Amino acid sequence: MARVVVTDGMSKDAVNLLEKSGHDVTLKSFSNDELLSGCLSEFDAIIVRSATKLSRQVIESTGNKLKVIGRAGVGVDNIDLDAASESKITVVNAPLASTQSVVELTIAHLLSSIRNISKSDRGLRQGKWEKKAMVGTELSGKSLGLIGFGRIAQGVGLVAQAMGMEVHTYDPYLPPKVAKNHSTRLHKDIDTLFKTCTHISVHCNLSDETHHLVNYERMKLMPGKSRLGIKCGNHIVNCARGGIVDEEDLFQALEDGIISTAALDVFEHEPVDSQNKLLSHPDFHGTPHIGAATLEAQSRVGIDIAKNVMDSLNGKTIKATVNSHLLK
Amino acid sequence: MARVVVTDGMSKDAVNLLEKSGHDVTLKSFSNDELLSGCLSEFDAIIVRSATKLSRQVIESTGNKLKVIGRAGVGVDNIDLDAASESKITVVNAPLASTQSVVELTIAHLLSSIRNISKSDRGLRQGKWEKKAMVGTELSGKSLGLIGFGRIAQGVGLVAQAMGMEVHTYDPYLPPKVAKNHSTRLHKDIDTLFKTCTHISVHCNLSDETHHLVNYERMKLMPGKSRLGIKCGNHIVNCARGGIVDEEDLFQALEDGIISTAALDVFEHEPVDSQNKLLSHPDFHGTPHIGAATLEAQSRVGIDIAKNVMDSLNGKTIKATVNSHLLK
Repeated sequence: MARVVVTDGMSKDAVNLLEKSGHDVTLKSFSNDELLSGCLSEFDAIIVRSATKLSRQVIESTGNKLKVIGRAGVGVDNIDLDAASESKITVVNAPLASTQSVVELTIAHLLSSIRNISKSDRGLRQGKWEKKAMVGTELSGKSLGLIGFGRIAQGVGLVAQAMGMEVHTYDPYLPPKVAKNHSTRLHKDIDTLFKTCTHISVHCNLSDETHHLVNYERMKLMPGKSRLGIKCGNHIVNCARGGIVDEEDLFQALEDGIISTAALDVFEHEPVDSQNKLLSHPDFHGTPHIGAATLEAQSRVGIDIAKNVMDSLNGKTIKATVNSHLLK
Repeated sequence: MARVVVTDGMSKDAVNLLEKSGHDVTLKSFSNDELLSGCLSEFDAIIVRSATKLSRQVIESTGNKLKVIGRAGVGVDNIDLDAASESKITVVNAPLASTQSVVELTIAHLLSSIRNISKSDRGLRQGKWEKKAMVGTELSGKSLGLIGFGRIAQGVGLVAQAMGMEVHTYDPYLPPKVAKNHSTRLHKDIDTLFKTCTHISVHCNLSDETHHLVNYERMKLMPGKSRLGIKCGNHIVNCARGGIVDEEDLFQALEDGIISTAALDVFEHEPVDSQNKLLSHPDFHGTPHIGAATLEAQSRVGIDIAKNVMDSLNGKTIKATVNSHLLK
């Protein structure tokens, strides 16, 4: 039996699962001062979302008992992986729980962009009936460029293909076979992806390598029309991480007509600055980082992290271990 | 060689096609007075969109030369079919041109509804970061009920299935084999469709039979949760024809929490009355009848109607003849 503390809340189903498996679960939030005072030293495992910050200082004040940190979600920005690894603490996350939710949000943003959904609704609410100004284009027959081709991008590709899109990707870490199995064309350099595709959707992690990967020069390469000559313009969607798209550049590209529509679920600074110029652009629409914000993802993430924490406590090596390369 | 008059505009490609086939094309708009004065009497065929109204009086003043009326689109509300048939005039339309565009708009509205796209964007523009208030649900794992199962509904079903939905339909005119071929469950009465589905999308014609088919009593039958128990609420989309959904009832159902979100592309009165209460409801979003408003549909509709008018002038019996049952 292990003692597990859950500091940012978790679904009832997940708590039940831990308890039925014989573990002792404590649901409690701590201030940073409490965390620093060693309040975690009596637990074998801690499960957090994004609110609890497990800095080096916090991790070093946990003593020797803590064996596993579980992040009920994907990103581990709030956990100092180096410090955890030095203390021989395994960090696990729940990377699969939100896949379908992010896939559907991405398709929602792609379609909302090209059919002017938010813009049309704004017009109707202002008493306008702008039928001619809202002429859009179809996704069918267009080339979709996916930056990164992990689980989410693969799911987006599947739905896009069902709507008649041709799917392309740039992913330097992808075995070519995976792209082939998904009838997706893998490009060796990212500029070729931009030259080929009228619609670009971001599905990679944020790193030094990907920061401002989508910039003015690259957007300028986009063709603006389909292979059959339909002048559909160019479109950018980012439901991955803020900072991969250069927001200043995106605004300028919209102003210059290089980009026709843009949709962001994630921003370089969150919550987004209300003075961000994109927010008042007519051809932009956004959502407040809600990729994983569905009842289904929230329910799955609890179950997944409970299972992964238990597996890890039992000494199993699992795929969801985030710091396996640092623990060796 | 026939003389063809195009009164509401048509794509250049389509005009070229008629001319290359040896026909004489006149592009000209007429006032209702001009139409009544017999200005159409020198033409063999007329091609209209929705602006030119071919009433009984107008049709009776065309003399004996006019053989074909082409409607560059689907709906023939602006043409008196009885009067045309009595004058032995064949009426053809272009029903296939907008299919994919309406399919994609329907998916756009379904996804925008359940992920609060327009509502989120409104919030961001007002400087709010409402991450928790915008929690939605996935389409995956839910039951979609399609009222009518023609070409558009079949296309919607295909994309919905790619996103993991279970597709149901009510269509009293559908051979059961067609539903089976599309892995879609055909219901014998509409109330069962409402009892089974958390998401309803309208894809039938407007007629006495379908007027206010979606009303408060039926919406009240909807289950509000998925078969796996996810409390996703109930959702209504109409990209077909205004008047099939009772808008007063829809507003009341939103107010009473029976319906969680609603999206309309079509309204009982168009342009929609700016005082329509739906337009200020937070869980409603709308578009100004833009189902066929894409570059692709507009391009295809010209070519399709040019071909159909020519076939009809050549005496061919074609599927796109709207009044074949009245001409016999």
